[in-house]
Amino acid sequence: MAEKIEVKKKVLSENDRLAADIRTSLKEREIVALNFVSSPGSGKTSLLERTLEALGSELRIAMIAGDVQTENDADRLVRAGGERVKPLVTGGSCHLDARMITGVLSDMDIEDVELLIIENVGNLVCPSGFDLGEDMKVVLISTTEGDDKPLKYPAMFRRSSVMVINKVDLLGTSDFDVETVRRNALSINPDLKIFEVSCRSGFGLDAWYAWLRELVSERTPAALVES
Amino acid sequence: MAEKIEVKKKVLSENDRLAADIRTSLKEREIVALNFVSSPGSGKTSLLERTLEALGSELRIAMIAGDVQTENDADRLVRAGGERVKPLVTGGSCHLDARMITGVLSDMDIEDVELLIIENVGNLVCPSGFDLGEDMKVVLISTTEGDDKPLKYPAMFRRSSVMVINKVDLLGTSDFDVETVRRNALSINPDLKIFEVSCRSGFGLDAWYAWLRELVSERTPAALVES
Repeated sequence: MAEKIEVKKKVLSENDRLAADIRTSLKEREIVALNFVSSPGSGKTSLLERTLEALGSELRIAMIAGDVQTENDADRLVRAGGERVKPLVTGGSCHLDARMITGVLSDMDIEDVELLIIENVGNLVCPSGFDLGEDMKVVLISTTEGDDKPLKYPAMFRRSSVMVINKVDLLGTSDFDVETVRRNALSINPDLKIFEVSCRSGFGLDAWYAWLRELVSERTPAALVES
Repeated sequence: MAEKIEVKKKVLSENDRLAADIRTSLKEREIVALNFVSSPGSGKTSLLERTLEALGSELRIAMIAGDVQTENDADRLVRAGGERVKPLVTGGSCHLDARMITGVLSDMDIEDVELLIIENVGNLVCPSGFDLGEDMKVVLISTTEGDDKPLKYPAMFRRSSVMVINKVDLLGTSDFDVETVRRNALSINPDLKIFEVSCRSGFGLDAWYAWLRELVSERTPAALVES
């Protein structure tokens, strides 16, 4: 086991080095980068579809859609109007890592991009350990999953800056309680910014869009000059 | 990376050896063992609660409830009447492995047990690679997760013998289509046995219980003598 831990440490420190390079490169271009993480089926792709439809003509957005197999998510994002969307099929790996992102970015034209969203593999455990050079992780949780998930998968909620509670249109069809999930998540990470949305009904999405706009405007040179 | 692959191979072959020992030991005691796998929140614990309530006085059932953190699931199973329930907190690991199961079993009285159910960590990727000495894997998928999951996480569906589609009471609240998920799953694994259930409404559970009864009766010595 000692050997396993040693190799794991080496892999992680190599990942951290590559992630730091990505972060520097994105910051130089004033690109805001978000790493979307969640269980399979929480609605990462749905939220990105809505985001593209609402902001695609206003902000220059690029997306990397990670999956173990299939390019289904990338295809959905292109259909939603995404002009700079790349699939990233891991072929078995349970998470994205910085080397994969470096590879995909080298093949993308991101020179004028303002917002880069990376959709990680659906997995509430492993992606928490791999920095991709993002500004922040956004963790999604859907109301059909159970409100104790932040306690059961604490690393992901500790390392995320934002929690999006999706599928609030389905509240009442299970025992999921929004106040409980908020309390559980904040007990792990008191600094979490929380959104409640339904990608299906549209509830709460305006606040999400407004936050993204603000995030991007804070990074652009105009805002830097003004401030 | 070669070093990483080498260590991974070693870990897996060590796991296979321990899993074979568990399998032999369970077979000698005529215990049927199932390994429950799914995304977080698909309803593994709910299905086990219903199963204990329905069959707990009829069959001698033991359960191991795996989670990254918290003993919430084990507590729920005890409240549902489970008399032989052990929590298995991985403390970070994204899957259960055979060494963990060996440790827990050494601390359990399973001499007269007929059915052992292991609830894996909620993760549709990593647990697929770790044999726990079970007779078969049972993969759950809920109707709120998306019907393309078998294509996106093929290893789990290929290595499972049974697929339980849970939350069918919520059909119609999303685009999830039962025929599509069946077709997708069977394209990965044509031998999958499929159940459609709702742990909430009770729909389809009688067929699930009947199948468990049959599985156990086929393993008991009486059935062996008869056949």
